[in-house]
Amino acid sequence: MTSHIAIDVMGGDHGPEVTVRAAARFLSRHPDAGLLLVGDQATIERYLEAETGVDLGRIEVVHADQVVAMDESPAVALRTKKRSSMRLAIDLVKDGRAQAAVSAGNTGALMATAKFVLKTLPGIERPAICTALPNDGGHTHMLDLGANVDCDAEHLFQFAVMGSVLVEAFDNNPSPRVGLLNVGAEAMKGNDTVKSAAERLISGPVNYIGFVEGDDIYKGTVDVVVCDGFVGNVALKSSEGVAKMISHFLRQEFKRGIFSRLAALMAMPVLARLKNRVDPGRFNGASLLGLQGIVIKSHGGADVASFGHALDVALREIDMDVPRRIDQQLEQLLQERQSS
Amino acid sequence: MTSHIAIDVMGGDHGPEVTVRAAARFLSRHPDAGLLLVGDQATIERYLEAETGVDLGRIEVVHADQVVAMDESPAVALRTKKRSSMRLAIDLVKDGRAQAAVSAGNTGALMATAKFVLKTLPGIERPAICTALPNDGGHTHMLDLGANVDCDAEHLFQFAVMGSVLVEAFDNNPSPRVGLLNVGAEAMKGNDTVKSAAERLISGPVNYIGFVEGDDIYKGTVDVVVCDGFVGNVALKSSEGVAKMISHFLRQEFKRGIFSRLAALMAMPVLARLKNRVDPGRFNGASLLGLQGIVIKSHGGADVASFGHALDVALREIDMDVPRRIDQQLEQLLQERQSS
Repeated sequence: MTSHIAIDVMGGDHGPEVTVRAAARFLSRHPDAGLLLVGDQATIERYLEAETGVDLGRIEVVHADQVVAMDESPAVALRTKKRSSMRLAIDLVKDGRAQAAVSAGNTGALMATAKFVLKTLPGIERPAICTALPNDGGHTHMLDLGANVDCDAEHLFQFAVMGSVLVEAFDNNPSPRVGLLNVGAEAMKGNDTVKSAAERLISGPVNYIGFVEGDDIYKGTVDVVVCDGFVGNVALKSSEGVAKMISHFLRQEFKRGIFSRLAALMAMPVLARLKNRVDPGRFNGASLLGLQGIVIKSHGGADVASFGHALDVALREIDMDVPRRIDQQLEQLLQERQSS
Repeated sequence: MTSHIAIDVMGGDHGPEVTVRAAARFLSRHPDAGLLLVGDQATIERYLEAETGVDLGRIEVVHADQVVAMDESPAVALRTKKRSSMRLAIDLVKDGRAQAAVSAGNTGALMATAKFVLKTLPGIERPAICTALPNDGGHTHMLDLGANVDCDAEHLFQFAVMGSVLVEAFDNNPSPRVGLLNVGAEAMKGNDTVKSAAERLISGPVNYIGFVEGDDIYKGTVDVVVCDGFVGNVALKSSEGVAKMISHFLRQEFKRGIFSRLAALMAMPVLARLKNRVDPGRFNGASLLGLQGIVIKSHGGADVASFGHALDVALREIDMDVPRRIDQQLEQLLQERQSS
């Protein structure tokens, strides 16, 4: 069966200019996939015409006459934007016409809409946002990144289970190492919530290796880092801030005097390789985990290549049947808890 | 009056090898300051003999026959290490023989001991750890960095007041901009604790500019970033992790092939300047704020230069009379609250 992805074409800072072009390239990369482009029909068609060699037989345009603004309140978007490109893309997943929805739009609205339309999996109280981040040897998945600013131990436990299943499926990793983000590795460290989550995880179904610290995200010590959405969001944005500052300093220093400029010229291929290794675009595409369906959030500012990466993530989650696998794992857990 | 700093000579990963050498250099930089070197007398004297041109008249050795281990529980250290170099250094502040104590030892033990011996300032429920971090134009102070893993709105409010007074004194900044770390800049974002802290700060005595996000730490948007110790610790360590990963990648890429090695040679002065700008050693010396006395925590792994920076921070806080200024600000606040 052909996999179909519904794209919220209007979402993100650049809208169809990025999303439609990324869609065209995605079809060339994946000759078996189909796309549903949701947004203003005339605009989509205009952008499609500009692309050459697109297999239009695998594209369906679904007209939407509303757009969710990037700064719109999730509650307002949910109530008043029932014909928005974001909402219709998720409706297509609900109706079974698409197996995943991808949007670069307003994160809060996307989460609220996805939760309302698709519902959470049985046993899941809160969906979480999970993304891959670069580490020394490959990548680390981290969740939650901002969907839940207040979490209790059971939420963290559920995040761990969902993250573990995702990585198992996504990376063909039979036993992902799961760490709980804390202020120290010793058992006595941390607040009551992480201590209590640790107790659940020790006897839980995942390969829990204990507490990890902020720098472990980038060390490759673990495959999955679990934290509440407040901490995860701050960690992610602090990391981005440092990386930007270093890159800014580097550019400044390479411009100081003629010798430095010459060195910059020589170092250009090295710096390009470095940029590629830490490029957030290569890791674009965060999964909204815990829903009865696949929804992928792209960075708002994504370019064509990185939005394409988010589409690839969606396709891989379809192929690996991620929501069903999470559901099975949860059901098993529920049975074990009931019988114990 | 000569300012005296008590140094926990035995603390840190390197102990007297770093601390005594840093002490000798400190005296050359500051011809009016005096030092109390606390630790094993014979060891200290041996290291002092190796230094040339030290003004021994400004050094007093205080023997301590115990050492707090880096991984010792704070409660155990407090109970069983009453003759440790750390404890005696803080006792010297309590007794008025020193105006500040500096240690590269166990953070938890240092905080517990300082709180027990010196007591908190009236009105302060919890001391906080505050340090400077580099930003695009200079530095940002951030607190708490790990002393308090559970904070309520009043604690965050107090951190904001203490951080503001510190920066006012330390940087001669008449009105430091204070931001509250959150997952978004909009007022509706965040958990109840930060929302409630924001309400207090809006009508409070500091120049509160609103919510800031993780990347603002390194942008220079604000002078003081306030958060609970869990979030602060994770943000700090995530930042360190990213910086290390980038530096590691850079070294790897500069080693790939003969051309890259040549480029590395050319780029060396640039990379040295970059390293200097983001070097954590330049920002070494975290303040334990909210105590009736000055206690400065150095990184455990500090080298001679960066431990020296922590000593400079201590001297500057003595000169600027930081604890008294915080006390005055708090007293004024208390009076305002009582009269309103």
